[in-house]
Amino acid sequence: MKATMLHGARDIRFEAVAVPSIEKPTDAVIRIAATCVCGSDLWPYRGIQPLAQPTRMGHEYCGEVVEVGSAVTTVKPGQFVIGSFFASDGTCPNCLAGYQSSCVHRELVGNAQAGMLRVPLADGTLVATPEMPPASMIPDLLTLSDVMGTGWFAAEAAEVAPAKTVVVVGDGAVGLLAVLSAKLKGAERIIAMSGHPTRQTLAREFGATDIVAERGEAGIARVMELTDGVGADCVLECVGTQGSFTQAIGCTRKGGHMSFVGVPHGVSLDGAALFFAHIHLHGGPAPVRRFLPDLIDLVWTGKIHPGKVFDLELPLEQVAEAYRAMDERRAIKALLRP
Amino acid sequence: MKATMLHGARDIRFEAVAVPSIEKPTDAVIRIAATCVCGSDLWPYRGIQPLAQPTRMGHEYCGEVVEVGSAVTTVKPGQFVIGSFFASDGTCPNCLAGYQSSCVHRELVGNAQAGMLRVPLADGTLVATPEMPPASMIPDLLTLSDVMGTGWFAAEAAEVAPAKTVVVVGDGAVGLLAVLSAKLKGAERIIAMSGHPTRQTLAREFGATDIVAERGEAGIARVMELTDGVGADCVLECVGTQGSFTQAIGCTRKGGHMSFVGVPHGVSLDGAALFFAHIHLHGGPAPVRRFLPDLIDLVWTGKIHPGKVFDLELPLEQVAEAYRAMDERRAIKALLRP
Repeated sequence: MKATMLHGARDIRFEAVAVPSIEKPTDAVIRIAATCVCGSDLWPYRGIQPLAQPTRMGHEYCGEVVEVGSAVTTVKPGQFVIGSFFASDGTCPNCLAGYQSSCVHRELVGNAQAGMLRVPLADGTLVATPEMPPASMIPDLLTLSDVMGTGWFAAEAAEVAPAKTVVVVGDGAVGLLAVLSAKLKGAERIIAMSGHPTRQTLAREFGATDIVAERGEAGIARVMELTDGVGADCVLECVGTQGSFTQAIGCTRKGGHMSFVGVPHGVSLDGAALFFAHIHLHGGPAPVRRFLPDLIDLVWTGKIHPGKVFDLELPLEQVAEAYRAMDERRAIKALLRP
Repeated sequence: MKATMLHGARDIRFEAVAVPSIEKPTDAVIRIAATCVCGSDLWPYRGIQPLAQPTRMGHEYCGEVVEVGSAVTTVKPGQFVIGSFFASDGTCPNCLAGYQSSCVHRELVGNAQAGMLRVPLADGTLVATPEMPPASMIPDLLTLSDVMGTGWFAAEAAEVAPAKTVVVVGDGAVGLLAVLSAKLKGAERIIAMSGHPTRQTLAREFGATDIVAERGEAGIARVMELTDGVGADCVLECVGTQGSFTQAIGCTRKGGHMSFVGVPHGVSLDGAALFFAHIHLHGGPAPVRRFLPDLIDLVWTGKIHPGKVFDLELPLEQVAEAYRAMDERRAIKALLRP
């Protein structure tokens, strides 16, 4: 079969690799129904996160189970499943505490931009849908593998709740789905920070009540103006740069909550500044597995359509074009079908 | 009258200053019953935090109200009062949210190592005791002005609760009172990190169940050993250095809570490291005012004796010796009586 390989900055190739098979009794092999390109894939694609060697790509996936190892008991061939980008055993103290993405046996699932995928620790990682989903539901389900789960974690970690004022920093797929998550959690006011007209429109559709197009100090000043000089109760940082962190901290009210859900790149936080900011801070790799059952239910019953973030769909063999479109911000998020 | 002035590194003088008086209708003037030297006073004393000019010292106080401005309604002359190191109006959005130490009109009360003190925003800052306290209770009440309130905030911000495992980093007065606070909040296990025999003894008396004398990586390894390799639920950082932050983050379990309550000096947190640490972080200047009514009640009814942290008592005129004793770690905390 063929799979996506990054050879160096902006050098994506779709090339022959071995078909995956069961290696451990806890593995499952699935036939990918759809996969996609993540904002975080762009860090190595742009050469910002250097590669030691050509690297398989893709960590968002859903599809049909083809084969399971002898120890797997919760999913079986023929079922449609979704899993997190981090495989987890589901039984360690971190998993039991709801932090499956910090499972003591976690493994990054990194080969998903392909036709077939081996998923380790299948019992602790995969969740099956009630039945085989209709084709039209697959984009919605695919988002649960990462971006919707991550947007949901952003809202959860910032303690979004009814009557709260929320700011979302970042208008990528995660930021937009953080807006949707804040709406689902009953936030009263949702301020989306975006200077991009198409993304502003989708943010409004997902529940944003206000748009702030300004960035940096001007963006903070605008949020302060909108919040009577106090700042927002909950600020969701969905980018991962020094600028977005500074902006997010500056928008949070004293005693408020800020979450951060994208891997920070080159971010350094000054201890004294954080002290006087007086905020609650929580973030890290989203424990997507914790949210999968509830989010699958929301999609299955038609209550949410997070798949709207896919504004480009290509056959998997055109994966290089999908990267280019996202790199150039021509697409919010590209869906790929094998 | 005479008051404490820092002229430069390790140059404390007790010298003549003007007697304070009502300057604004919201002020009160109090006669200090006792004041003390704070761990944070040692930063400028040691020259680590440089001074632009000779500076009045002291921010911990309790005493009798002598005079109030025309707008003050909640305290009156003859009452015994305690206040926070930050004066607060009690009415702004940050005060109403319980973050009085980030009051939009806050003022640092910085002249307390003296016989008399002007306290701004008296209504929002001072809390009176039910009656004039006995002399023996004054050390306990004095701690509520800062160190006990700050230790309590450390426990609150790290969400200490029954059945939790707690680590306290730092064996100064705040760290020791954080141990007492964790005990009061019902923690099951309290690990105090201290290599100092006298402080270990007091930590045990306040409720520590385990002592870890090792520091840095060895300290983290020991805490991991004591927590089955998982880390503690709640870690209270009560020092404010890079080393103590690294130690505290390293001791916190995934999804756990870490608080920090001392002004960080030269501390920088790497965003990616914090992301993968997967912890909740909350800290800042303790909103002592929020806790004063409850803590006064605990002292008044004899349930706690936080004044045990004072292991040196001197007349105020010997304030320079009090600084020396704390600087050399001969004393945990020095109480001064005018």
